[in-house]
Amino acid sequence: MIAITDADDPRIADYRAVRERDLVGRMGRFVIEGEVVLRLAVARGRFPLASALLSEKRAGLAETIPAGVPVYVAPQAVMDSVTGFPIHRGVLAVGVRGDAPDPRALLAALPPRALVVALVGLTNHDNVGGIFRNAAAFGADAVILDGETCDPLYRKAIRVSAGGALVVPFARAGDPSALLDLLEEAGFTSLALSPRGADTFATLRPPARAALVLGTEGPGLPDAVMSRARTLRIAMAGEFDSLNVAVTSGIALHALAGLDG
Amino acid sequence: MIAITDADDPRIADYRAVRERDLVGRMGRFVIEGEVVLRLAVARGRFPLASALLSEKRAGLAETIPAGVPVYVAPQAVMDSVTGFPIHRGVLAVGVRGDAPDPRALLAALPPRALVVALVGLTNHDNVGGIFRNAAAFGADAVILDGETCDPLYRKAIRVSAGGALVVPFARAGDPSALLDLLEEAGFTSLALSPRGADTFATLRPPARAALVLGTEGPGLPDAVMSRARTLRIAMAGEFDSLNVAVTSGIALHALAGLDG
Repeated sequence: MIAITDADDPRIADYRAVRERDLVGRMGRFVIEGEVVLRLAVARGRFPLASALLSEKRAGLAETIPAGVPVYVAPQAVMDSVTGFPIHRGVLAVGVRGDAPDPRALLAALPPRALVVALVGLTNHDNVGGIFRNAAAFGADAVILDGETCDPLYRKAIRVSAGGALVVPFARAGDPSALLDLLEEAGFTSLALSPRGADTFATLRPPARAALVLGTEGPGLPDAVMSRARTLRIAMAGEFDSLNVAVTSGIALHALAGLDG
Repeated sequence: MIAITDADDPRIADYRAVRERDLVGRMGRFVIEGEVVLRLAVARGRFPLASALLSEKRAGLAETIPAGVPVYVAPQAVMDSVTGFPIHRGVLAVGVRGDAPDPRALLAALPPRALVVALVGLTNHDNVGGIFRNAAAFGADAVILDGETCDPLYRKAIRVSAGGALVVPFARAGDPSALLDLLEEAGFTSLALSPRGADTFATLRPPARAALVLGTEGPGLPDAVMSRARTLRIAMAGEFDSLNVAVTSGIALHALAGLDG
């Protein structure tokens, strides 16, 4: 544990103005907020920690951090000052993302029965975070992102995912067509979800390797994706045909995971 | 159409600092944002409009507003100035909530087969908005709120609901026990959703009059509710047992509405 008394201390530079900056893009690092997500990150160990920054009240959490990782402890006021906004929970950490995984290798390594989620053009951090939370809850094996979809390790996406972004492996494919190629090569049946989908979940017998393909709420999935996939819809009451894409993912993953027995 | 050139014009006082103020609590009014929700509000007509405020670029929408409702049209800069933040969509309106509906009368007027949602202690506007969006999408007949649950007509709740809060009738009961009494009197079977629930949706035959009871993500539903209801759970992958309550409502309403045929 290293006591920090000065918000300008260079050792905690990673935490400066975390709300405005996105460590992910420029430095290959990402920010973890809160005890629950920090404990999850440590337990899963997919990403090494670069450091942790705890308020004095939360210094007890230092014992959960792996040996060798610097744990900075600061008065609440110093912590708020360096980050630029009140860190009520008093728990921050910085993770290291490492090399980008190869999507082909990730898919090939999955078991014969597998469920993955494929995201096309999802640029909203709340939605991507929400989808990762559902993917973790229903045991999805991986998430494949197209080039447009935002980074699941962005601070807000991790928070909304309740840590799911640190649990479910993900990799980035190129454009939607390259993404579908990858899924096909790996023996996955793409199930494209859209209000224009042909079938509902009531009649679906999930394939052994299923890829749930999700697009944005407004424009939806491009025709080039719809025409190459088996298309599904969630039946709604009709006059109000509108579901958030994270909710949609929850309904679809619940149906596909088949955990209700 | 009334041209507004001055942000201090008293005729548009309802729109002043809408982000900070909550018109609902103090004045029995509420704020509608964006074309989609405004059109929905007009089409449903559950709540009269007090006025609309459009940017000059969106003045064409004036023809969708019922006769007799003042439509103020202002330059974008004046609109941003009065509201206190950039109104990119250039479309605002103020609705009038009217008298609070009686929950007993609302439930009694529903058909013999009916699906309602009952919310206990939900104080997060995003979650309540998300639940209303799902309730509208799956055709729920009503939402009953306990005393703790936040107002569905709060600006952010309406926005997140995509207008669902203006579609699905709602009424407020007292404490959770009074809420369950009301449901029971009206012949509804309460289905309490919780990770501690006894059954899953796979084995459920929905009752003719079903009330889906939802509580907060952390503490969940109080024992007093669980002990009086049939309890259900959504099976998860186990190690990551965490779903957002709005997502939960979507999964449960999808199962209960039975629209997938």
